[in-house]
Amino acid sequence: MKMSLGAKTVGYPTPVFVVGTYDQAGQPNAMTAAWGGICCSQPPCVAVSLRKATATYGNILARRAFTISIPSKKHVKQADYLGLVSGRGVDKFAATKLTPVKSELVDAPYVEEFVLVLECKLAHTIELGLHTQFIGEIMDVKAEETVFGRGGLVDLKKMDPLISTPDTQSYYGLGGLVGQAYAMGKAL
Amino acid sequence: MKMSLGAKTVGYPTPVFVVGTYDQAGQPNAMTAAWGGICCSQPPCVAVSLRKATATYGNILARRAFTISIPSKKHVKQADYLGLVSGRGVDKFAATKLTPVKSELVDAPYVEEFVLVLECKLAHTIELGLHTQFIGEIMDVKAEETVFGRGGLVDLKKMDPLISTPDTQSYYGLGGLVGQAYAMGKAL
Repeated sequence: MKMSLGAKTVGYPTPVFVVGTYDQAGQPNAMTAAWGGICCSQPPCVAVSLRKATATYGNILARRAFTISIPSKKHVKQADYLGLVSGRGVDKFAATKLTPVKSELVDAPYVEEFVLVLECKLAHTIELGLHTQFIGEIMDVKAEETVFGRGGLVDLKKMDPLISTPDTQSYYGLGGLVGQAYAMGKAL
Repeated sequence: MKMSLGAKTVGYPTPVFVVGTYDQAGQPNAMTAAWGGICCSQPPCVAVSLRKATATYGNILARRAFTISIPSKKHVKQADYLGLVSGRGVDKFAATKLTPVKSELVDAPYVEEFVLVLECKLAHTIELGLHTQFIGEIMDVKAEETVFGRGGLVDLKKMDPLISTPDTQSYYGLGGLVGQAYAMGKAL
């Protein structure tokens, strides 16, 4: 039997997206966001939603660009810190001993130590309420050579991403392969 | 060292969202989508992107409503089928032996057998290119009583959601608890 949870933001699995931006003075910043995901195949686009109160919000509007760096499990403490502390007056890269790398494609930095990086130009800004959704056109995806698998694609087990649950405030790891998509359903 | 994958739609973890709609004749349909996620906390909203070619696209525009039913691992074959086959001329609920339940809150059906359900009124329609992003205001979330954990919240391990990788066409399961969010980073 189903029970009501009320009108809440529960939609699992939730990602751990670390949004990289420069402020107006060129200071790199990174913040962890949970509300986002791929939203278009052509042009390839990714969405991430931020509150106006964040430093990253203003940075994206000023620079019209952002990156999304996705950590593997071994960087969970750094990713969590980047969601706890505001970048106003704090050098979060220095505090976490992470390295900002200037993208050659967009006006934003990414996190060198995180295994998967999306470099995005701001394409749409959508006011939704408490959050503003930024849609970025993905100009390139870069992955650490250690996470590549068959066919030059990212092997999710090697990437070892985090899955977050904002309402229960937890991080989970990835489990085993269940099966092949666009294949398992053919039996039906 | 990082290597380029090109401008691609890679942003893990990717969800398995089954979008429930009625067509103009009242026939229930369900299709599996990978591009989506929570996008605003207040009002609570979820985004899902669909190609115009899908039956679900027209259904959402006609009925101004949709549900998202999220399966656990045990329903992976049904979820995969719902992404393989178009609902035009096919009763996908009958083919999968799944049960459509009419939402009491919005003009759309959800999947009784799937453990987590979001009932949404269409709030925004955003043309992005190949995909159109539908943003729904979440009117209620319903969960199977078996997946509730502490504090009346969904226990992700009990829910046992799927994680998909559209580019490598695979489904993965959930791994173990890594730690507490908004806590692990305090040590830094």
